[in-house]
Amino acid sequence: MKSKTYKLKLDNELLLESGESLSDVQIAYQTYGVLNENADNAILVCHALSGDAHLAFEHEKDKTKLGWWNDMVGPGKGIDTNKFFVICSNTIGSCLGSTGPQSINPKTDKEYGLSFPIITIKDMVNAQKKLCEHLNISQLHAVIGPSMGGMQAIQWAIEYPSYVKRCTLVATASKLSPQSMAFAAVGRHSIKTDINWNQGNYEKENLPETGLGIARMIGHITYLSEESITRKFGRKLQEKKDYEYSFDTEFQIESYLQYQGKKFVKRFDANSYLYLSKALSYFDLDKSYGSLEKALKKIKSETLIISITSDWLYPTEQSKEIAHMLMKQNKRVSFCEVDSPYGHDSFLIEVEKFSKVIKPFLEKVND
Amino acid sequence: MKSKTYKLKLDNELLLESGESLSDVQIAYQTYGVLNENADNAILVCHALSGDAHLAFEHEKDKTKLGWWNDMVGPGKGIDTNKFFVICSNTIGSCLGSTGPQSINPKTDKEYGLSFPIITIKDMVNAQKKLCEHLNISQLHAVIGPSMGGMQAIQWAIEYPSYVKRCTLVATASKLSPQSMAFAAVGRHSIKTDINWNQGNYEKENLPETGLGIARMIGHITYLSEESITRKFGRKLQEKKDYEYSFDTEFQIESYLQYQGKKFVKRFDANSYLYLSKALSYFDLDKSYGSLEKALKKIKSETLIISITSDWLYPTEQSKEIAHMLMKQNKRVSFCEVDSPYGHDSFLIEVEKFSKVIKPFLEKVND
Repeated sequence: MKSKTYKLKLDNELLLESGESLSDVQIAYQTYGVLNENADNAILVCHALSGDAHLAFEHEKDKTKLGWWNDMVGPGKGIDTNKFFVICSNTIGSCLGSTGPQSINPKTDKEYGLSFPIITIKDMVNAQKKLCEHLNISQLHAVIGPSMGGMQAIQWAIEYPSYVKRCTLVATASKLSPQSMAFAAVGRHSIKTDINWNQGNYEKENLPETGLGIARMIGHITYLSEESITRKFGRKLQEKKDYEYSFDTEFQIESYLQYQGKKFVKRFDANSYLYLSKALSYFDLDKSYGSLEKALKKIKSETLIISITSDWLYPTEQSKEIAHMLMKQNKRVSFCEVDSPYGHDSFLIEVEKFSKVIKPFLEKVND
Repeated sequence: MKSKTYKLKLDNELLLESGESLSDVQIAYQTYGVLNENADNAILVCHALSGDAHLAFEHEKDKTKLGWWNDMVGPGKGIDTNKFFVICSNTIGSCLGSTGPQSINPKTDKEYGLSFPIITIKDMVNAQKKLCEHLNISQLHAVIGPSMGGMQAIQWAIEYPSYVKRCTLVATASKLSPQSMAFAAVGRHSIKTDINWNQGNYEKENLPETGLGIARMIGHITYLSEESITRKFGRKLQEKKDYEYSFDTEFQIESYLQYQGKKFVKRFDANSYLYLSKALSYFDLDKSYGSLEKALKKIKSETLIISITSDWLYPTEQSKEIAHMLMKQNKRVSFCEVDSPYGHDSFLIEVEKFSKVIKPFLEKVND
């Protein structure tokens, strides 16, 4: 099955958490399955930092390219498109179809660059809300998201408690840990100190690819686990058996990280990376609502929280904290720690372990 | 007490593990205490990646600057200079007094840069051996080293088994873990892709400070523990209470890492960083001797192995592996896991916890 990307242009300005506003906001999105008559079988899936609206099925222009969670979403799958109308939109601030720093500022007719306002997870959610209204959805059957998408999902449940029936958080947290913030900060620093970055006004011919590549390489290490790096690469050399005694790329892990960096800079914009990384770092339910307890008190949806044993970027403890707090508040919450060795990225690799938990949560008959 | 740096110029070429050789090798070193008549009370301390020969006492030109392990080494301290003659030399390949890529190549009268041969931990040890011979030391009472210094210490015990009576390894491993190799690889990549690096031929006015700074920032995160980052910085903002909604340096952890990066580039050479990082990555007793078992079989010295609970760069398991193997071989070995929350850097912070174990090990009367 082929996917198709739609674009929605918002009529009104989008008011942002910073106090600024964005006009002419465009949202790129895809949908799968059919919205039922009551318009209450819709599931919104929110993507992680580098994701896009192409969640499932074949790419409209390249059938070898499948959606980022194609193993999860489809007929009979974890998120069953025979039963549900599934939506995925590119977040604002990104560079993969929705309005972001690469877009044209209607006030100046030039690219925003750094004049694009800082956006937050809440702003992403507010833009998605406009999309859902446009699609005439009366209530979301569920919001689901991994990683940064999980932050959006919980933000949805807090801000629009009556609109979200079920909420699934995968490998996420109520705030980035200080160690994860440190890695994110070095990534931003490496982009901002790239000589081509030029305060965000870079030329198409001279992109800050070095800095963005390094940011991605750092990110990649944090997405893998010690165990998965060891299993996959260990200390193995690329070809030869013996050391070359040079500074060439010799170890497989080196070559893999460099390849990931190079691949990423071809499809992602450095300024967008800065905006999304900053949104991740800003996200803090404690700070936004006075305390995590106060934030979670607003939630009415039934919640499923999934963490990963080997995820050190979003450790299980952070998921447990949310689960415990919701339990204390007598909310309907389930918690599951998926045993997978692939680190944070497990949700993209051992998808069946996640769909086994998500499918019954979405399909059980409540009330 | 003031310290004093001496320089030794080796008469003969130093043959390197790569098959190449280095001529006119200079070794910068310091000594503390007095060598006894039998010349058998000497202790060699090996430093970590960014360390130097200034191990203890006040700097000869700046009395506010104390040696890097001043709390460990001195009269009555863990390594007691009233009893022992303590030596610390800057490793070859470094930039802090000993021959390295910043030195003048006697064959060309120009700086080596990348024409400096790749050096290994074994090469560092062989240079130190020449220094010990020059100092007329008949046998080392002990070799001690943390981190990269620990790799040198175990290499000493393996290569010169009769020369080393006691060996103390602190927060080290028989080989860098794949995850630690990944971080090291990104650090080297960030130096090599700095536009100023210029294949190692950089100008004094245009140093690859950006790349070296990023390498150091990445390193710093790995030297701290999740707990120590959280305790020290958490998610705290620098000054203001509220977010600025900008890309300025806002979080304390960001500012700390940037400060560490800036401080480091003032005193360290980017090429030296590459050489030492590569030496760390190459170090692999399995590979060099056929197996860890075969490597350790050569050891005759009594060994004390110390790991740190919160060290994730050189996890306790790696130290335990060495200890277990030595035990299996009926070698005299003690193992101690120091409980400290400061991560890999603990050996520089809670020094008393380490000296409490090291002092009796060095001073007990054997045989």
